[in-house]
Amino acid sequence: MKMNELQNAPWVMAKRAQKMNPSVIREILKVTEKPGIISFAGGLPSPKTFPISEFSAACEKVLRESGDAALQYAASEGFVTLREMVAAALPWPVDPAQVLITTGSQQGLDLVAKVLIDEGSRVLVETPTYLGALQAFTPMEPEVVSVASDAEGVDLDDLTAKAAGARFLYVLPNFQNPTGRTMTEERRAALSSRAAELGLPIVEDNPYGDLWFDTPPPLPLSARNPEGCVYLGSFSKVLAPGLRLGFIVAPKSLYPKLLQAKQAADLHSPGFNQRMVAEVIKDGFLERHVPTIRALYKSQCDAMLAAMQQHMPEGVHWNTPAGGMFVWVRLPEGLNAIELLPKAVDKGVAFVPGAAFYADGADPRTLRLSFVTASVDQIKTGIAALAAAIREHAARG
Amino acid sequence: MKMNELQNAPWVMAKRAQKMNPSVIREILKVTEKPGIISFAGGLPSPKTFPISEFSAACEKVLRESGDAALQYAASEGFVTLREMVAAALPWPVDPAQVLITTGSQQGLDLVAKVLIDEGSRVLVETPTYLGALQAFTPMEPEVVSVASDAEGVDLDDLTAKAAGARFLYVLPNFQNPTGRTMTEERRAALSSRAAELGLPIVEDNPYGDLWFDTPPPLPLSARNPEGCVYLGSFSKVLAPGLRLGFIVAPKSLYPKLLQAKQAADLHSPGFNQRMVAEVIKDGFLERHVPTIRALYKSQCDAMLAAMQQHMPEGVHWNTPAGGMFVWVRLPEGLNAIELLPKAVDKGVAFVPGAAFYADGADPRTLRLSFVTASVDQIKTGIAALAAAIREHAARG
Repeated sequence: MKMNELQNAPWVMAKRAQKMNPSVIREILKVTEKPGIISFAGGLPSPKTFPISEFSAACEKVLRESGDAALQYAASEGFVTLREMVAAALPWPVDPAQVLITTGSQQGLDLVAKVLIDEGSRVLVETPTYLGALQAFTPMEPEVVSVASDAEGVDLDDLTAKAAGARFLYVLPNFQNPTGRTMTEERRAALSSRAAELGLPIVEDNPYGDLWFDTPPPLPLSARNPEGCVYLGSFSKVLAPGLRLGFIVAPKSLYPKLLQAKQAADLHSPGFNQRMVAEVIKDGFLERHVPTIRALYKSQCDAMLAAMQQHMPEGVHWNTPAGGMFVWVRLPEGLNAIELLPKAVDKGVAFVPGAAFYADGADPRTLRLSFVTASVDQIKTGIAALAAAIREHAARG
Repeated sequence: MKMNELQNAPWVMAKRAQKMNPSVIREILKVTEKPGIISFAGGLPSPKTFPISEFSAACEKVLRESGDAALQYAASEGFVTLREMVAAALPWPVDPAQVLITTGSQQGLDLVAKVLIDEGSRVLVETPTYLGALQAFTPMEPEVVSVASDAEGVDLDDLTAKAAGARFLYVLPNFQNPTGRTMTEERRAALSSRAAELGLPIVEDNPYGDLWFDTPPPLPLSARNPEGCVYLGSFSKVLAPGLRLGFIVAPKSLYPKLLQAKQAADLHSPGFNQRMVAEVIKDGFLERHVPTIRALYKSQCDAMLAAMQQHMPEGVHWNTPAGGMFVWVRLPEGLNAIELLPKAVDKGVAFVPGAAFYADGADPRTLRLSFVTASVDQIKTGIAALAAAIREHAARG
């Protein structure tokens, strides 16, 4: 036996590994992590919104009063008190037994994929859709099909044409990532009825729903047909992402298999983190805290929209989000957001090209801007720089 | 459309969901969670070993000094300082770039399964093997094949006979769960050579390796052939399980795909927890702390072995673990540990029937006893009760 045989065992990768590729966004974020770059790229909540002193007090209390339990192995379902709080806060009747605490809502997508997707299963998504969902579904090797979508949500005729045999429709109705758009009440009512007629289950992702500016978004799809929907929620945007806590609300027919998948995936989400969050939110903290996040993000969104109005050349279009973290921009005909990016970085500003968010048929003219990480002053400077980059890109081709 | 159509969307589950079943152990733990039951069933570390005051000080410091970073989204690879600490603590040269922080070492198994197992792929395991590994592998639908094993480790002839086409061999060489046995130096050397000759990759799981009683276990298999092994480690047994932190050390050829799988699974493990642990262990804390765990578990193991010597009827056999958390017991011919369990619970003591730990061909006479959760007094009482239950079971049949 030669030495190189000892040192080179022939790893054979699973077929699915070939389909697993780096997140375009994470790669872009690395490129744009130069000092001084104003980033509209990441979807990072503003650290100003992290309630650090409340976390600190909660850590001390949890470790003092229930340290042994907080640090021990725990139930895969999650900390019962937190599950009760989640159920009580949702705008439809939810039994805490339907709530499964997850390691961020990204894990909710992983568990849904494991339980519902076979190789080749048809999965319907919006156009465009959340990239992290595509990444979570990919290892289970679905056939992902984009459903045409407009500013109000998915197109029901296209949905109907594509629904046959689909395992589920994945939607993010509130302040969508990446477009910032919100599905209207009328569209929700129609979609809920149509999906039920079609026998099409819905996976509803709602990480941003609490971050509305002036009025709350319409009732979730899950509230309209709880047995036909899996609902995913998150503490990342209302408390902090670094705790990695989210949740699934599942119909009783699905819950046991999601629970098994959860147990096999990481046994349970950190009990210490769950107890910390329960301690922080137990006395209505979110009702006082979340309005401060809304006000901050609204002011930053307003600043971005005003700066765009002031600086953007003719032919650039964007929407007006009613909440969340993102504005969706479309460049004039002939321009390409991927080609624009290095020019924008040269001018000190970063964004994510919209092409990253399409399951198929990407619109190369689109791009996503986040208004939550940069300050108002940075937003003004950054939008002016981006507008200048677009002008140059248009002039030089 | 009728109301029941609205309320009953036809969820179609993935094929793999049929193979995902509740953990026998978790179900048993529920049955045995009656007040007053002395449990040798769970593999729960003693809460006496949780360094609560150190965690409390670390929480305060991390939130005060780097709260914004600890609570923000973070790199999927893990907190760089913690990765450096992990690499430096391992007994062979490891580049921190090879270390991937996971949400408990259970997640390491999930990621390995996603990257290495196709439907029908042959995966080799010890006889018996860790149940959590079987649960993590099952969703990827492998053909799991048990390799004959003796007190020193896997049988190399049987391994050779079964290795053709196998994606990897999964082994837990130190104080194995469930048997408590340790693979000898001689067997490790021979297995490492044979696996290299066969071109058989090894997945080495080492959650208990630091919990030795008198002498450290032999060098890991990964140290002997780093390119041919994936190594899984955990902070659950040396610090606390409730933080859910483990790690993978992977060859450079595998790391990128494991990282993609990690990102899709939960983006990253909680940054707050990673910084807390790094803060606690940075000044050699584990070198002072782990010896206290070793001493405690050794005293509890000694108490269990002495009580068994005193109380067990003839024909009951058990091993003498050199570390870890478990003793493996074999009942006299004709007895069955699953049938014994309710009788033992009636007498106030619980264990896990060994049958739960076999991929195939279970030995119904085996059972697993954990000596780490109960106190020495409880161990004495519990073993006497278990011996009485075995006597009655043998007498009544």
